[in-house]
Amino acid sequence: MNKYIVIDGGVSSPKGFLSSGIHSGVKKSGKNDLSLVYSEVPAYSWAMFTTNKACAAPVTLSKSHIQDQNIQAIVINSGNANACTGQKGLSDAYEMATVTASALNIAPQNVIVSSTGLIGLPLEMDKIKSGITKAAEALSANGSKEAAKGIITTDAHLKTIAVQVTIDNKVVTIGGMAKGSRMIHPQMATMLSIITTDANIDKAYLKYLLNDTTEKTYNMISIDGDTSTNDMVAVMANGKACNNELNANHPEVQSFANAFAFVNEYLAKSIVADGEGATKFIEVQVVNSNTLASAKLAAKSILTSNLVKTSLFGEESNWGRILCSIGYSGAQFDVDKLEISLVGDNKETIKIVENGQSTIFCKESAKKLLKERNITILVDFKTGSQNSIAWGCDLSHDYVKINSSHIS
Amino acid sequence: MNKYIVIDGGVSSPKGFLSSGIHSGVKKSGKNDLSLVYSEVPAYSWAMFTTNKACAAPVTLSKSHIQDQNIQAIVINSGNANACTGQKGLSDAYEMATVTASALNIAPQNVIVSSTGLIGLPLEMDKIKSGITKAAEALSANGSKEAAKGIITTDAHLKTIAVQVTIDNKVVTIGGMAKGSRMIHPQMATMLSIITTDANIDKAYLKYLLNDTTEKTYNMISIDGDTSTNDMVAVMANGKACNNELNANHPEVQSFANAFAFVNEYLAKSIVADGEGATKFIEVQVVNSNTLASAKLAAKSILTSNLVKTSLFGEESNWGRILCSIGYSGAQFDVDKLEISLVGDNKETIKIVENGQSTIFCKESAKKLLKERNITILVDFKTGSQNSIAWGCDLSHDYVKINSSHIS
Repeated sequence: MNKYIVIDGGVSSPKGFLSSGIHSGVKKSGKNDLSLVYSEVPAYSWAMFTTNKACAAPVTLSKSHIQDQNIQAIVINSGNANACTGQKGLSDAYEMATVTASALNIAPQNVIVSSTGLIGLPLEMDKIKSGITKAAEALSANGSKEAAKGIITTDAHLKTIAVQVTIDNKVVTIGGMAKGSRMIHPQMATMLSIITTDANIDKAYLKYLLNDTTEKTYNMISIDGDTSTNDMVAVMANGKACNNELNANHPEVQSFANAFAFVNEYLAKSIVADGEGATKFIEVQVVNSNTLASAKLAAKSILTSNLVKTSLFGEESNWGRILCSIGYSGAQFDVDKLEISLVGDNKETIKIVENGQSTIFCKESAKKLLKERNITILVDFKTGSQNSIAWGCDLSHDYVKINSSHIS
Repeated sequence: MNKYIVIDGGVSSPKGFLSSGIHSGVKKSGKNDLSLVYSEVPAYSWAMFTTNKACAAPVTLSKSHIQDQNIQAIVINSGNANACTGQKGLSDAYEMATVTASALNIAPQNVIVSSTGLIGLPLEMDKIKSGITKAAEALSANGSKEAAKGIITTDAHLKTIAVQVTIDNKVVTIGGMAKGSRMIHPQMATMLSIITTDANIDKAYLKYLLNDTTEKTYNMISIDGDTSTNDMVAVMANGKACNNELNANHPEVQSFANAFAFVNEYLAKSIVADGEGATKFIEVQVVNSNTLASAKLAAKSILTSNLVKTSLFGEESNWGRILCSIGYSGAQFDVDKLEISLVGDNKETIKIVENGQSTIFCKESAKKLLKERNITILVDFKTGSQNSIAWGCDLSHDYVKINSSHIS
């Protein structure tokens, strides 16, 4: 297996990709608010979108454009989500695609569009259109950082990464950037992730890989259980690394898959770690379940329980709340076999539940472990061999403070 | 239609019912912690229980005893939930039934058992057993209030009610009591409701009525989305009012059903209103849906969204968060037809969303309306004729404070 290495970079690190981020005028702060990601040749692509039925106009448009899996550019604006904007929203999203296509001399159906920010306001199309022209002129192989800045809203940190892995003795690069807020602004949409790669990869396999990875990464994080109107994860692969086509039968496919999984897991975890108000980064591992579905249900239920989240904020080892949240998750398990352990940063492990009942664990040791920032809750069903991991955060005073106050 | 009237009373107000509440010693505070409800004759009965797979021992026992629908006594202890207590928990629950049966000279399978309080501790059976004897001696037609005291944990207010309605020119009485905490104590179970009536009622119809009413009342309240290990709603009907048997064809059945619904809705709302930390009582009405299922999904989703709940605490009219929570609820609706209004105590109505987009509503008026304690969110799907109502509360600083602190 060829190990991947992390390099300094982002979405335009893979060969044949350019990117840019500029200020169009939508954000009053003067910060970047419009980004472009461009491949010199049409790239095999795929994207997954929010399942929210009140999805935004750019989601509707992009769902249609991604169908043939050929995309050459992604345009993203931040500061305005173009959601709940009716027929005007749809025509604005379409105009964003056509203006981008014309600036880059490509076909409009090879452009996907994403918007993130306030819900319910019409886009200021004059600013957006001149911004797109400006962003097209600014496209550069060194544009990753500016592009990453252009898609964030209330994020405290930029989320950008690039890794390299050798396939068929060719260097294959994967770049990525993400945006994830804690929805700290009223009516803010949540997350967005763009992955680029110069890998030569089979179209169907790319689609499979993104679906599979999204299930294991972005779909396993939770900040507050609210699924936004604008979520999108998109990948573009332009083949410029000239490796033999990657598919399920390629001898080095697992090396690529591992690198791809790492990039997406890194970005997903960065979103959770950046949650304003959060004082803890929580990993939940549910292991030895009969089915993957049950492992996932239990892991997500623990991470979305307000009672578990407040007790983690309070650094209390309330095993009863954890067990209760597994109980109502819909997961199939045998409570009499269940084990729950707390694992600290240094892998110190304290088993708090055995055979579905409390162990005689040391309350002081548990209290000390729960003072750490990174905490793992390990749940062992002891009935099968399926495992699932999910990530989340605690529920703090600051979460309530931030989300109950008005930001104009 | 015969209108019901509310009288001063509770579970032993209906003819032929006695009740009591005493201090057995489980609660350190010296407050009542064990209650008995007894019918002089076996009563047609039914009960619904938590769907949590990690259900408590008394739930397992009571599920079995309720099958034949003949119950003569309910014994409830508070302070210890007898949950996650393994084989000992089951034999303790069974012993509670046999000791009660022997004190009352009835059959053990005609007793149901309920426990509420801390999870994971073994019951102190010596205290419980002598407590049951004491409670049997204290049984009285005036015991409703003491019984209601014996089942609460951290509730601020007693929840007890009785109503009377005339059926076949006979006075039929329905009594009830409930317990509902905000799960403010670590590992606390949530809710419990006991209804008694002297109505003469068909066994199958009684079962139907409780199932139907529970779906519309207890199953439509949410405080924090956590389903406890011990929830139970039980009804006993002993026929002592001597009306003609109530069933679907009885000419006055709707009068009884209305009174029965009122009692259960009153107790369900009392649980939500008693939420420590809550500053708002929220009613959500979803109307004109194509299906009842979609109306219920949307109503519950709004009430369990942390983002909606924090904005209500902050008295902000964040219509985007409400629309977003409907979008991910799984409900079928047409976003372009959707209307959302806020309704205040005095029925003042402000329409904030029309055709899926924000109206130009007055922010100051909305702010003023949201300062009231009782707020209704009215969602009109405008596609059908099915309606659903749900009740909940806001998410406040005090909720986080209470649930992140340890109470020994």
